[in-house]
Amino acid sequence: MSVLAGLTAALSSGSVEIIDLTTPLSSETPILNLPQPFANTVGLSVSPVSNFDDAGPAWAWNDVTVGEHAGTHLDAPVHWITGKDGKSVDQIEPHRLVGPIVVIDKTTEVSADPDFLLEPEHFEQWQSEHGLFPENCWVIFRTGWAARGADAAAFVNADDAGPHTPGVSAAGAKWLAGNASISGFGVETVGIDAGQAGGLDPMFPVHSFLLGADKYGVTSLRNVDRLPVTGATLVVAPLPIVGGTGSPSRVYALVEK
Amino acid sequence: MSVLAGLTAALSSGSVEIIDLTTPLSSETPILNLPQPFANTVGLSVSPVSNFDDAGPAWAWNDVTVGEHAGTHLDAPVHWITGKDGKSVDQIEPHRLVGPIVVIDKTTEVSADPDFLLEPEHFEQWQSEHGLFPENCWVIFRTGWAARGADAAAFVNADDAGPHTPGVSAAGAKWLAGNASISGFGVETVGIDAGQAGGLDPMFPVHSFLLGADKYGVTSLRNVDRLPVTGATLVVAPLPIVGGTGSPSRVYALVEK
Ligand SMILES: Nc1ccccc1C(=O)C(=O)O
Ligand SMILES: Nc1ccccc1C(=O)C(=O)O
Repeated sequence: MSVLAGLTAALSSGSVEIIDLTTPLSSETPILNLPQPFANTVGLSVSPVSNFDDAGPAWAWNDVTVGEHAGTHLDAPVHWITGKDGKSVDQIEPHRLVGPIVVIDKTTEVSADPDFLLEPEHFEQWQSEHGLFPENCWVIFRTGWAARGADAAAFVNADDAGPHTPGVSAAGAKWLAGNASISGFGVETVGIDAGQAGGLDPMFPVHSFLLGADKYGVTSLRNVDRLPVTGATLVVAPLPIVGGTGSPSRVYALVEK
Repeated sequence: MSVLAGLTAALSSGSVEIIDLTTPLSSETPILNLPQPFANTVGLSVSPVSNFDDAGPAWAWNDVTVGEHAGTHLDAPVHWITGKDGKSVDQIEPHRLVGPIVVIDKTTEVSADPDFLLEPEHFEQWQSEHGLFPENCWVIFRTGWAARGADAAAFVNADDAGPHTPGVSAAGAKWLAGNASISGFGVETVGIDAGQAGGLDPMFPVHSFLLGADKYGVTSLRNVDRLPVTGATLVVAPLPIVGGTGSPSRVYALVEK
């Protein structure tokens, strides 16, 4: 049987399942909130075009306004100064957006310390247990953070110093950017960098190193706890906004039973 | 080898390719234009949040406004009066959005008659040549229309009577809606109905019958000429807009060499 006939049969029988990793997109979807003097993006707002009325007797439809970086979204290289001569979201080749998933689970560490940062030794430790990162993979950082998704305050987890959410150290981000197998990095939080990453050097190191190395980020993932550590396939589907710095995205995982 | 390991290997070797069927999304992307007194949706507009300036020294990002039914988009049941108690775009199960592609090629007929409509006998003829439509399939109507994509006037192809673009007759739409194997219907034009479908009975029959039968539409597809008649797999990825009547979508096809 061909690969795709096998996939079709497996989807029909249920032996391969499609898990939706996307956060539902509404005006309630958590978004990043940077401190003054920085400008912030907007969450979703909806404006009706018609609603079974004179403007459209048999149909309802809406226009929407939303940030390129709202909700589950992809960060493209041109989002960051280090990648500004790189690819906009529409220029990323689809084959970089579909690939094997590796899950790095630090749920325990993060529940003890919300500011937990991944370091190079965590990636090396993972590889010594599970093998080298596969070609074109997406590294998904499992933190349990999505469980806070229904409680906006717990999700942002801010105090006077700003948000406290997990991320990657500058050394860890540099390590990821230098690994040729990695296509992208996915997180459960609103951004690919830690809540306190504005104070790291360089500031926002995951953005800085990954987007500068033609690697991509994807955020606000749900259902990461349903993924196996290896063996699942990610499908990241941003809108191909011409010149866009990112896009709200649908993200699916194919998981084999 | 497991199905997904096989898929990963095939993507690496290039024996399975990801073809992007999505129209790039910009202010130039063609959108539907209904006649008075109906209201129309908006195309994409972009508003900068920061651009490597005081509002964001190391980053650029934008907010966007766009219609749920602009560019390559999915039509959800609640878009139409016949489906208004049905699913909004966020409620469609992912397994209905990933499935085998069947291509019905009427490029020749459409080049002779832009108002060409698919009839039940065209579907029956296809099945007598290629077998029954497979479970959970997406029927893609190949018309060659995407070749007009660079020329807005040719793409809309309007005269005093309105747009002249291909579609499906009322009988054809009823036939599709009654076929249990079909998940959705995809087209190269701006809408799943013909340009002249406002004058059919019921008006806009594909919207009316398919969305009323929990089937979905996807529009403005590109690269349909690169699909085999059978054997490819469609991945439709709308944003899960809560309560949304549709969404701009990324659409990929997996094609085996
Ligand atoms: N951390 C940031 C700092 C500045 C701009 C954006 C971000 C994001 O997280 C984002 O890309 O969503
Ligand atoms: N044909 C229509 C008539 C009324 C409203 C929308 C449409 C669409 O094509 C659409 O869904 O894009």
